[in-house]
Amino acid sequence: MPDYNHILAAVDFSAAAEAIGKRALDLSRRYDCQVTLIHVVDYLLPLGYADDFTPSPVLMIDENELLEQSQRSLQTFAEKTGLEGARRQVLPGSPRQEIIRYAREHGADLIVIGSHGRHGLDRLLGSTARSILNDAPCDVLAVRIKEA
Amino acid sequence: MPDYNHILAAVDFSAAAEAIGKRALDLSRRYDCQVTLIHVVDYLLPLGYADDFTPSPVLMIDENELLEQSQRSLQTFAEKTGLEGARRQVLPGSPRQEIIRYAREHGADLIVIGSHGRHGLDRLLGSTARSILNDAPCDVLAVRIKEA
Repeated sequence: MPDYNHILAAVDFSAAAEAIGKRALDLSRRYDCQVTLIHVVDYLLPLGYADDFTPSPVLMIDENELLEQSQRSLQTFAEKTGLEGARRQVLPGSPRQEIIRYAREHGADLIVIGSHGRHGLDRLLGSTARSILNDAPCDVLAVRIKEA
Repeated sequence: MPDYNHILAAVDFSAAAEAIGKRALDLSRRYDCQVTLIHVVDYLLPLGYADDFTPSPVLMIDENELLEQSQRSLQTFAEKTGLEGARRQVLPGSPRQEIIRYAREHGADLIVIGSHGRHGLDRLLGSTARSILNDAPCDVLAVRIKEA
Protein backbone atom coordinates (compact mmCIF):
# COMPACT_ATOMS: atom_id res chain seq x y z
CA MET A 1 0.00 0.00 0.00
CA PRO A 2 1.95 3.04 -1.21
CA ASP A 3 1.76 6.27 0.79
CA TYR A 4 0.09 9.29 -0.68
CA ASN A 5 2.71 11.61 -2.19
CA HIS A 6 0.72 14.33 -3.91
CA ILE A 7 -2.67 15.53 -2.72
CA LEU A 8 -4.74 17.65 -5.08
CA ALA A 9 -7.33 19.70 -3.19
CA ALA A 10 -10.07 21.15 -5.41
CA VAL A 11 -11.52 24.29 -3.87
CA ASP A 12 -13.90 27.10 -4.57
CA PHE A 13 -14.03 30.02 -2.15
CA SER A 14 -17.17 29.11 -0.25
CA ALA A 15 -17.22 28.54 3.50
CA ALA A 16 -17.43 24.83 2.67
CA ALA A 17 -14.06 24.88 0.94
CA GLU A 18 -12.34 25.48 4.24
CA ALA A 19 -13.16 21.91 5.31
CA ILE A 20 -11.53 20.61 2.13
CA GLY A 21 -8.39 22.66 2.67
CA LYS A 22 -8.10 21.65 6.29
CA ARG A 23 -8.51 17.97 5.59
CA ALA A 24 -5.89 18.20 2.82
CA LEU A 25 -3.51 19.91 5.25
CA ASP A 26 -4.20 17.29 7.94
CA LEU A 27 -3.54 14.42 5.52
CA SER A 28 -0.42 16.06 4.09
CA ARG A 29 1.04 16.19 7.59
CA ARG A 30 0.22 12.54 8.30
CA TYR A 31 1.66 11.42 4.96
CA ASP A 32 4.40 14.05 4.89
CA CYS A 33 3.49 14.91 1.32
CA GLN A 34 2.92 17.72 -1.14
CA VAL A 35 -0.41 19.54 -1.59
CA THR A 36 -1.61 21.39 -4.66
CA LEU A 37 -4.62 23.69 -4.35
CA ILE A 38 -6.55 23.84 -7.59
CA HIS A 39 -9.34 26.25 -8.46
CA VAL A 40 -11.10 26.01 -11.79
CA VAL A 41 -12.82 29.12 -13.13
CA ASP A 42 -15.92 27.78 -14.81
CA TYR A 43 -17.04 30.32 -17.42
CA LEU A 44 -20.75 30.25 -18.02
CA LEU A 45 -20.35 31.39 -21.61
CA PRO A 46 -17.27 31.70 -23.83
CA LEU A 47 -16.48 35.34 -24.57
CA GLY A 48 -16.30 34.68 -28.28
CA TYR A 49 -20.05 34.12 -28.36
CA ALA A 50 -20.73 37.84 -27.94
CA ASP A 51 -21.14 38.52 -31.65
CA ASP A 52 -23.65 41.29 -32.14
CA PHE A 53 -26.06 40.48 -29.32
CA THR A 54 -26.66 43.03 -26.61
CA PRO A 55 -23.89 42.22 -24.15
CA SER A 56 -25.15 40.59 -20.96
CA PRO A 57 -23.22 40.94 -17.69
CA VAL A 58 -21.74 37.49 -18.32
CA LEU A 59 -20.33 38.58 -21.65
CA MET A 60 -18.65 41.62 -20.20
CA ILE A 61 -16.44 39.62 -17.85
CA ASP A 62 -12.76 40.04 -18.60
CA GLU A 63 -11.17 36.59 -18.62
CA ASN A 64 -7.75 37.71 -17.45
CA GLU A 65 -9.23 39.83 -14.71
CA LEU A 66 -11.23 36.81 -13.51
CA LEU A 67 -8.17 34.59 -13.46
CA GLU A 68 -6.07 37.16 -11.62
CA GLN A 69 -8.82 37.70 -9.09
CA SER A 70 -9.05 33.93 -8.55
CA GLN A 71 -5.29 33.75 -8.04
CA ARG A 72 -5.52 36.39 -5.33
CA SER A 73 -8.48 34.59 -3.71
CA LEU A 74 -6.58 31.28 -3.79
CA GLN A 75 -3.59 32.89 -2.09
CA THR A 76 -5.85 34.33 0.63
CA PHE A 77 -7.50 30.91 1.00
CA ALA A 78 -4.11 29.19 1.34
CA GLU A 79 -3.03 31.60 4.05
CA LYS A 80 -6.30 31.26 5.96
CA THR A 81 -6.20 27.45 6.01
CA GLY A 82 -2.51 27.06 6.86
CA LEU A 83 -1.62 25.92 3.36
CA GLU A 84 0.88 28.69 2.54
CA GLY A 85 3.35 26.00 1.48
CA ALA A 86 1.02 24.41 -1.06
CA ARG A 87 1.42 24.84 -4.79
CA ARG A 88 -1.46 26.90 -6.24
CA GLN A 89 -3.06 26.41 -9.63
CA VAL A 90 -5.89 28.43 -11.21
CA LEU A 91 -7.25 27.14 -14.50
CA PRO A 92 -10.14 28.13 -16.75
CA GLY A 93 -12.54 25.47 -17.98
CA SER A 94 -14.75 22.64 -16.80
CA PRO A 95 -13.97 21.74 -13.18
CA ARG A 96 -14.29 18.01 -13.79
CA GLN A 97 -12.10 17.97 -16.88
CA GLU A 98 -9.43 20.28 -15.53
CA ILE A 99 -9.15 18.56 -12.14
CA ILE A 100 -8.86 15.12 -13.76
CA ARG A 101 -6.37 16.36 -16.35
CA TYR A 102 -4.21 18.10 -13.76
CA ALA A 103 -4.23 15.00 -11.51
CA ARG A 104 -3.17 12.83 -14.42
CA GLU A 105 -0.45 15.13 -15.72
CA HIS A 106 1.04 15.87 -12.31
CA GLY A 107 0.76 12.40 -10.78
CA ALA A 108 -1.62 13.29 -7.96
CA ASP A 109 -2.50 10.15 -6.01
CA LEU A 110 -5.34 11.62 -3.96
CA ILE A 111 -7.94 14.20 -5.00
CA VAL A 112 -9.80 15.91 -2.15
CA ILE A 113 -13.17 17.36 -3.14
CA GLY A 114 -16.36 18.47 -1.44
CA SER A 115 -19.37 16.22 -1.40
CA HIS A 116 -22.77 17.88 -1.33
CA GLY A 117 -26.22 16.45 -0.92
CA ARG A 118 -28.98 15.71 -3.37
CA HIS A 119 -31.00 18.88 -3.09
CA GLY A 120 -31.14 22.19 -4.95
CA LEU A 121 -27.83 23.75 -5.88
CA ASP A 122 -26.08 21.11 -3.81
CA ARG A 123 -27.29 18.53 -6.27
CA LEU A 124 -25.62 20.35 -9.12
CA LEU A 125 -22.37 20.69 -7.21
CA GLY A 126 -22.61 17.05 -6.19
CA SER A 127 -22.63 15.99 -9.82
CA THR A 128 -19.09 17.33 -10.21
CA ALA A 129 -17.98 15.15 -7.29
CA ARG A 130 -19.65 12.10 -8.81
CA SER A 131 -18.13 12.58 -12.22
CA ILE A 132 -14.69 13.12 -10.72
CA LEU A 133 -15.17 9.86 -8.87
CA ASN A 134 -15.84 8.11 -12.18
CA ASP A 135 -12.91 9.44 -14.10
CA ALA A 136 -10.17 10.09 -11.57
CA PRO A 137 -6.91 8.24 -12.22
CA CYS A 138 -6.37 7.99 -8.45
CA ASP A 139 -8.12 7.82 -5.08
CA VAL A 140 -10.75 10.45 -4.30
CA LEU A 141 -11.68 11.71 -0.84
CA ALA A 142 -15.07 13.39 -0.74
CA VAL A 143 -15.29 15.63 2.30
CA ARG A 144 -18.87 15.81 3.51
CA ILE A 145 -20.13 19.37 3.39
CA LYS A 146 -22.96 19.79 5.86
CA GLU A 147 -26.03 21.37 4.30
CA ALA A 148 -27.08 24.65 5.80
CA MET B 1 -10.58 19.67 11.71
CA PRO B 2 -11.51 16.62 13.83
CA ASP B 3 -9.50 13.42 13.45
CA TYR B 4 -11.12 10.35 12.00
CA ASN B 5 -12.25 8.05 14.82
CA HIS B 6 -14.17 5.27 13.11
CA ILE B 7 -13.38 4.04 9.61
CA LEU B 8 -15.96 1.85 7.87
CA ALA B 9 -14.36 -0.22 5.08
CA ALA B 10 -16.88 -1.74 2.68
CA VAL B 11 -15.47 -4.88 1.07
CA ASP B 12 -16.44 -7.74 -1.16
CA PHE B 13 -13.99 -10.62 -1.53
CA SER B 14 -12.51 -9.74 -4.91
CA ALA B 15 -8.81 -9.12 -5.41
CA ALA B 16 -9.72 -5.43 -5.59
CA ALA B 17 -11.03 -5.43 -2.03
CA GLU B 18 -7.53 -5.97 -0.72
CA ALA B 19 -6.62 -2.40 -1.71
CA ILE B 20 -9.60 -1.10 0.28
CA GLY B 21 -8.64 -3.11 3.36
CA LYS B 22 -5.02 -2.04 3.19
CA ARG B 23 -5.85 1.64 2.82
CA ALA B 24 -8.26 1.40 5.77
CA LEU B 25 -5.52 -0.24 7.85
CA ASP B 26 -2.98 2.39 6.79
CA LEU B 27 -5.34 5.26 7.70
CA SER B 28 -6.35 3.65 11.00
CA ARG B 29 -2.68 3.59 12.00
CA ARG B 30 -2.15 7.22 11.04
CA TYR B 31 -5.30 8.33 12.89
CA ASP B 32 -4.98 5.73 15.65
CA CYS B 33 -8.63 4.80 15.22
CA GLN B 34 -11.08 1.95 14.99
CA VAL B 35 -11.92 0.07 11.76
CA THR B 36 -15.09 -1.84 10.97
CA LEU B 37 -15.11 -4.17 7.97
CA ILE B 38 -18.58 -4.40 6.46
CA HIS B 39 -19.73 -6.88 3.85
CA VAL B 40 -23.26 -6.71 2.49
CA VAL B 41 -24.75 -9.87 1.01
CA ASP B 42 -26.80 -8.61 -1.88
CA TYR B 43 -29.51 -11.19 -2.66
CA LEU B 44 -30.56 -11.11 -6.25
CA LEU B 45 -34.09 -12.24 -5.38
CA PRO B 46 -35.84 -12.58 -2.01
CA LEU B 47 -36.41 -16.24 -1.13
CA GLY B 48 -40.10 -15.66 -0.45
CA TYR B 49 -40.65 -15.00 -4.15
CA ALA B 50 -40.23 -18.72 -4.96
CA ASP B 51 -43.94 -19.47 -4.90
CA ASP B 52 -44.74 -22.23 -7.35
CA PHE B 53 -42.24 -21.38 -10.06
CA THR B 54 -39.58 -23.90 -11.00
CA PRO B 55 -36.79 -23.07 -8.58
CA SER B 56 -33.79 -21.40 -10.22
CA PRO B 57 -30.27 -21.68 -8.71
CA VAL B 58 -30.79 -18.27 -7.15
CA LEU B 59 -33.92 -19.42 -5.34
CA MET B 60 -32.24 -22.47 -3.87
CA ILE B 61 -29.65 -20.46 -1.94
CA ASP B 62 -29.97 -20.85 1.81
CA GLU B 63 -29.86 -17.40 3.37
CA ASN B 64 -28.27 -18.46 6.65
CA GLU B 65 -25.68 -20.55 4.86
CA LEU B 66 -24.81 -17.55 2.71
CA LEU B 67 -24.41 -15.26 5.70
CA GLU B 68 -22.26 -17.78 7.58
CA GLN B 69 -20.08 -18.32 4.55
CA SER B 70 -19.66 -14.55 4.22
CA GLN B 71 -18.69 -14.31 7.88
CA ARG B 72 -15.96 -16.91 7.34
CA SER B 73 -14.78 -15.11 4.21
CA LEU B 74 -14.67 -11.80 6.06
CA GLN B 75 -12.58 -13.33 8.82
CA THR B 76 -10.14 -14.75 6.26
CA PHE B 77 -10.05 -11.36 4.55
CA ALA B 78 -9.31 -9.59 7.83
CA GLU B 79 -6.43 -11.95 8.60
CA LYS B 80 -4.98 -11.62 5.12
CA THR B 81 -4.98 -7.82 5.18
CA GLY B 82 -3.67 -7.37 8.72
CA LEU B 83 -7.06 -6.26 10.03
CA GLU B 84 -7.53 -9.01 12.64
CA GLY B 85 -8.31 -6.32 15.21
CA ALA B 86 -11.13 -4.78 13.19
CA ARG B 87 -14.79 -5.25 14.03
CA ARG B 88 -16.54 -7.37 11.38
CA GLN B 89 -20.11 -6.96 10.20
CA VAL B 90 -22.00 -9.05 7.63
CA LEU B 91 -25.45 -7.81 6.66
CA PRO B 92 -28.03 -8.90 4.08
CA GLY B 93 -29.59 -6.29 1.83
CA SER B 94 -28.74 -3.48 -0.55
CA PRO B 95 -25.06 -2.50 -0.24
CA ARG B 96 -25.77 1.21 -0.53
CA GLN B 97 -28.58 1.24 2.03
CA GLU B 98 -26.86 -1.01 4.56
CA ILE B 99 -23.50 0.76 4.38
CA ILE B 100 -25.14 4.18 4.82
CA ARG B 101 -27.37 2.93 7.63
CA TYR B 102 -24.49 1.28 9.46
CA ALA B 103 -22.32 4.40 9.14
CA ARG B 104 -25.13 6.55 10.51
CA GLU B 105 -26.02 4.27 13.41
CA HIS B 106 -22.44 3.61 14.48
CA GLY B 107 -21.03 7.08 13.95
CA ALA B 108 -18.50 6.21 11.26
CA ASP B 109 -16.73 9.35 10.11
CA LEU B 110 -15.01 7.89 7.05
CA ILE B 111 -16.33 5.26 4.64
CA VAL B 112 -13.70 3.56 2.45
CA ILE B 113 -15.06 2.03 -0.74
CA GLY B 114 -13.74 0.88 -4.10
CA SER B 115 -14.14 3.07 -7.13
CA HIS B 116 -14.47 1.36 -10.47
CA GLY B 117 -14.51 2.74 -13.98
CA ARG B 118 -17.28 3.39 -16.43
CA HIS B 119 -17.21 0.19 -18.44
CA GLY B 120 -19.06 -3.13 -18.31
CA LEU B 121 -19.52 -4.67 -14.90
CA ASP B 122 -17.27 -1.98 -13.45
CA ARG B 123 -19.90 0.53 -14.39
CA LEU B 124 -22.52 -1.28 -12.34
CA LEU B 125 -20.20 -1.55 -9.35
CA GLY B 126 -19.27 2.08 -9.76
CA SER B 127 -22.88 3.11 -9.33
CA THR B 128 -22.82 1.84 -5.75
CA ALA B 129 -19.83 4.07 -5.04
CA ARG B 130 -21.59 7.06 -6.56
CA SER B 131 -24.78 6.57 -4.61
CA ILE B 132 -22.84 6.12 -1.38
CA LEU B 133 -21.12 9.40 -2.14
CA ASN B 134 -24.52 11.07 -2.41
CA ASP B 135 -26.05 9.78 0.76
CA ALA B 136 -23.19 9.22 3.17
CA PRO B 137 -23.46 11.11 6.46
CA CYS B 138 -19.66 11.44 6.54
CA ASP B 139 -16.52 11.63 4.37
CA VAL B 140 -16.04 8.96 1.71
CA LEU B 141 -12.69 7.74 0.38
CA ALA B 142 -12.99 6.00 -2.97
CA VAL B 143 -9.95 3.80 -3.54
CA ARG B 144 -9.21 3.57 -7.24
CA ILE B 145 -9.43 -0.01 -8.41
CA LYS B 146 -7.32 -0.45 -11.54
CA GLU B 147 -9.23 -2.09 -14.36
CA ALA B 148 -7.86 -5.43 -15.53
